[in-house]
Amino acid sequence: MRSAITILASIICIDAANAQSIQHFDPVVFSRVNITDHFWKPKMDLVATTTLNACIYQTEVATPRLRNFEKVARKKGEKHEGIFYDDSDVFKALEAMSYSIANDHDSALEAKADEWIDKIAAAQLPDGYLNTYFTLNDLSLRWTDMSMHEDYNAGHMIEAAVAYYNATGKRKFLDICIKWADYFDSVFGPGKRHWVTGHEELELALVKLYRVTGNKKYLNLSHWLLEERGHGYAHGYTWTDWKDTAYAQDVLPVSQQTEITGHAVRAMYLYTGAADVAAQTGDTSYMNAMKNVWNDVVGRNMYITGGIGSSGGNEGFSKDYDLPNEYAYCETCASVGMVFWNQRMNALTGESKYMDVLERSLYNGALDGISISGDHFFYGNPLASNGQNSRREWFGTACCPANIARLIASLGNYIYANNEKDIWVNLFVGSNTNIALKKGNVGIRMETNYPWDGNINITAQPDKKMQYALHIRIPGWAVNTPVPGDLYGYTDHYNDSVTILVNGKPATYNTELGYAVIDREWKKGDVVTMLLPMQVRKIVARSEVTADANRIALQRGPLVYCVEMKDNNEGVWNLLLPQSSTFIIVNSNVLTEKIVALEAKASVIVAAADGNSVNTQTTTIKAIPYYTWANRGNNAMQVWLPTKVTAIKIN
Amino acid sequence: MRSAITILASIICIDAANAQSIQHFDPVVFSRVNITDHFWKPKMDLVATTTLNACIYQTEVATPRLRNFEKVARKKGEKHEGIFYDDSDVFKALEAMSYSIANDHDSALEAKADEWIDKIAAAQLPDGYLNTYFTLNDLSLRWTDMSMHEDYNAGHMIEAAVAYYNATGKRKFLDICIKWADYFDSVFGPGKRHWVTGHEELELALVKLYRVTGNKKYLNLSHWLLEERGHGYAHGYTWTDWKDTAYAQDVLPVSQQTEITGHAVRAMYLYTGAADVAAQTGDTSYMNAMKNVWNDVVGRNMYITGGIGSSGGNEGFSKDYDLPNEYAYCETCASVGMVFWNQRMNALTGESKYMDVLERSLYNGALDGISISGDHFFYGNPLASNGQNSRREWFGTACCPANIARLIASLGNYIYANNEKDIWVNLFVGSNTNIALKKGNVGIRMETNYPWDGNINITAQPDKKMQYALHIRIPGWAVNTPVPGDLYGYTDHYNDSVTILVNGKPATYNTELGYAVIDREWKKGDVVTMLLPMQVRKIVARSEVTADANRIALQRGPLVYCVEMKDNNEGVWNLLLPQSSTFIIVNSNVLTEKIVALEAKASVIVAAADGNSVNTQTTTIKAIPYYTWANRGNNAMQVWLPTKVTAIKIN
Repeated sequence: MRSAITILASIICIDAANAQSIQHFDPVVFSRVNITDHFWKPKMDLVATTTLNACIYQTEVATPRLRNFEKVARKKGEKHEGIFYDDSDVFKALEAMSYSIANDHDSALEAKADEWIDKIAAAQLPDGYLNTYFTLNDLSLRWTDMSMHEDYNAGHMIEAAVAYYNATGKRKFLDICIKWADYFDSVFGPGKRHWVTGHEELELALVKLYRVTGNKKYLNLSHWLLEERGHGYAHGYTWTDWKDTAYAQDVLPVSQQTEITGHAVRAMYLYTGAADVAAQTGDTSYMNAMKNVWNDVVGRNMYITGGIGSSGGNEGFSKDYDLPNEYAYCETCASVGMVFWNQRMNALTGESKYMDVLERSLYNGALDGISISGDHFFYGNPLASNGQNSRREWFGTACCPANIARLIASLGNYIYANNEKDIWVNLFVGSNTNIALKKGNVGIRMETNYPWDGNINITAQPDKKMQYALHIRIPGWAVNTPVPGDLYGYTDHYNDSVTILVNGKPATYNTELGYAVIDREWKKGDVVTMLLPMQVRKIVARSEVTADANRIALQRGPLVYCVEMKDNNEGVWNLLLPQSSTFIIVNSNVLTEKIVALEAKASVIVAAADGNSVNTQTTTIKAIPYYTWANRGNNAMQVWLPTKVTAIKIN
Repeated sequence: MRSAITILASIICIDAANAQSIQHFDPVVFSRVNITDHFWKPKMDLVATTTLNACIYQTEVATPRLRNFEKVARKKGEKHEGIFYDDSDVFKALEAMSYSIANDHDSALEAKADEWIDKIAAAQLPDGYLNTYFTLNDLSLRWTDMSMHEDYNAGHMIEAAVAYYNATGKRKFLDICIKWADYFDSVFGPGKRHWVTGHEELELALVKLYRVTGNKKYLNLSHWLLEERGHGYAHGYTWTDWKDTAYAQDVLPVSQQTEITGHAVRAMYLYTGAADVAAQTGDTSYMNAMKNVWNDVVGRNMYITGGIGSSGGNEGFSKDYDLPNEYAYCETCASVGMVFWNQRMNALTGESKYMDVLERSLYNGALDGISISGDHFFYGNPLASNGQNSRREWFGTACCPANIARLIASLGNYIYANNEKDIWVNLFVGSNTNIALKKGNVGIRMETNYPWDGNINITAQPDKKMQYALHIRIPGWAVNTPVPGDLYGYTDHYNDSVTILVNGKPATYNTELGYAVIDREWKKGDVVTMLLPMQVRKIVARSEVTADANRIALQRGPLVYCVEMKDNNEGVWNLLLPQSSTFIIVNSNVLTEKIVALEAKASVIVAAADGNSVNTQTTTIKAIPYYTWANRGNNAMQVWLPTKVTAIKIN
């Protein structure tokens, strides 16, 4: 943490001053949270070094992404290289760099960011337009095709600029974005041209720009963009890239949407932006629509890993309960988007179930997107593999690496929240922060070895004795609700339970909206201890999910487990795990990652030596956390294990 | 057959008069071939009735395809409905209707075609442009995006117009196309604008237009379009739809291409067009390139069904030997394209191996695209299924139904060929024709129950006693070469052989380029009998094709077989077929389709009653021709059957 905190504090005031906010509470911003966690801190350090170095190398050396900006400045008629949305990768890397700078100041990284920002500035046209693809190739075609990501690129530019301003206080990049947004506002809006964003992103970015500048024009513009959807503009000539408006969530106005459709990342960014606008404007129609859509996602279309978007064909949704495991698409960016959206829903409603889903996506679907080494990535995150999946250094479409990097670098955003009188603890991550309540400041220190064990100590450091309510999230998974709704359930009713102590004695608390609420007078050094039950839990899916029929998945704490060939030489697709299985816990490791592994007795069906028949044998299987798979070479893997044989396939 | 023959004869004269042709021989055009075949004639009748009715209903009633043309004529500012390439489906249906009219005149069908042609005429702009998408939505954007199929749509329009002119002698539709082509020629070409067709098709169509009009401008334009590829225009701003120029075969100039890449149908239409131009111009660089590409297709990237394009992601090619069975894409249109391209290669080179591949694609990969009922279709044609694949009435992108319809309706194109002195028999289809050699006319009658048995009688009816060589294709599958090259081989050397008799006595013949050449004086009533060996043949794939490791496929005659759950209640993925298996032949049927089925002893691995283990049992399996699967509801299916267990998967 560094001096940027003071800058941020003033920024947040603009937001807090907005009387229309309907937020239940505000998340504590990451730059006010110092993370000391055993699990996350090393990952953040790795992102700040290895992952960002990889992003920087790919952006400025290995690919023409940054060079496209230089070409615009040179004005020598050079053509754009790469894909039309490559600018966004430069911005997303800058955003991750900004968070890293805010976390632990690094002059070299800041100098690199300034160098990039100078190049971006030099590529802005006098009218404010900034897009290397159209500027280099044919400016007369700008804004003629809604699918060309001009808005998307700019949205990521704004997110990066806001992050960099918050991290450093330097305005240059922010001013570029203000100029761009004013230009966009001069072209589009009520009485001007219509526009439906082809890949949503600008909406949420404009709310960030509003929050940092206080200029309501940007909020209004974001709201207008949301309102543009669902009126058939997509049928116009500019919507050429896709066969279906459902792909871009443009069938119905946002306030009338009830089901998730199309491209998963687009959907996540849309609903995040809509929640941001709802938070500012109090538009309850958005909230109601998003609650319906959320029920559709979580109740019918989400993997147990918190991943969404089962279909590779449209990078998104197919039909309800269609959740194939081996061919799960589950883009890393979609899980990152689930974190964004669920945080907004949690802040708006105060309900812990959104944070349950956030935690599931974060520890499983999203974290799986980055290797233990920090420099290899998954674009898709399937739940079963024949060994064909390998993590890669980079991608032609490189949205995922910087997206997971910016998420981990800003993890502090998701841990605490407060309103003017109370405090919320949402995630269990070793950290400390300082929260300004109306009555005074409260320091908070959390210590835990979560997710490996379930003991969490939260120490209060109020300036003075102070009455306030501490709301601690009771994870759904700990109280027999692995996922909100009934898409997934446990095989058994687990009789273990959550214990909460204050200064070592059973606490008095109410449960509200999924939180344990301890409302008392707190003094310096008061310690709340939460003991979460860490028994291995066996999960079953609704019968409509045919891919998971007669199968169980394993979860311990927030972590979903899998069996990988590397630990199970006799195979992973030919295992039979009785539903009555019991597990032992084993401290283990995957490369450098210390983990808790699970072991259990199982049957394995293997070919006879002559290849003409098969035998059933007993074996001991080992399961590892899902996020650690595919770090030891290509490997067959399964999350959902059969409990009985109904049919078999010969390979 | 009808009076259109005389019209066609005059058209063909234009082509025959072209001294530059390097063709080995010319295929006899379908309208000169009267098909009487047990196997194909009922299918052609079904296409002429049920399939065309379905195409017509979908084109003018169930979807807005034809209505878009009416909207242009009304000039009321109505917008385009559907997808930007929907015009092509109208044209392709018209082409199939034209072939059907040429086969068996149907006044009602001709009236329907005239009605559509009037609507098309009314949608043509004064300058010749014709495209409902851009005309209705924003004409200023025409020709700004190479991926928008304006050229592709027009190519299908030309193909349809040529077909209709050949069938009826009516010029109206042809004149529309001439006007369009002259307009296109005024905009694009040497010294004018550059253009790379986003979806190849116009090239081959322009050669057809040249052949019917004799106007060399269209041939030159086609040649110029081919020459536009591979010069980096694809990197310009108009190439936005795809990340990769390989997708559209635009990495290298056509004459330098050695490998098949990208979208399979695009590739097929490109190479067909290139062969057509090469046939007219004598451009041997195209021929050499296409031979290399063909070796790449047939030697490394073709399924045993003659299907190509394994990957659904790009509707095309991935990497060599990547031929997954369950997730084979194998678009019906790509198999139709294989028929087009291989016919050109066969005519250019005189080599039978191209016809071997054509026959394989025709009887398997392409024919599988249409249901036995004639009104349900497959877009993709996988070689294994868990029962998830069902034939559908129509598709949003509806290229396949009319494509298979036009192929079957014009099947007569692929049976016979001739040059001025000799005759070739390429396919074994009951039919008669009349071929004009320089010395005089020769009537030919072929009678056979192929592909169910291998007896083929070919009766000569020359005007007078005449010396000529009759070249009869010896199918590669009958002489231990299932597929040219070594991608696939037989498990055994089959000792059966091809027998050829003339008037019941062993014939004297040489083998040239894969044909039995019987060069003698022929008189009326001379009968050549060919006896093809119809033993069931077991096929193995090269070891590089990991999807087929330890598996065999079954072929009898030109037909590839499969096992379907409907006939094999104990399952099809759990069967074990020893490599030494022998088969018995059973007359059977799939719905109304009389077939020859195969039966053999096999092992089947089934779950024990308690679901905790498995047993190996013996069973009798039944295999049916691949093209007949999925006609009796959704069904698990496999073409490649394991010969031993190496690994198993529990479902």
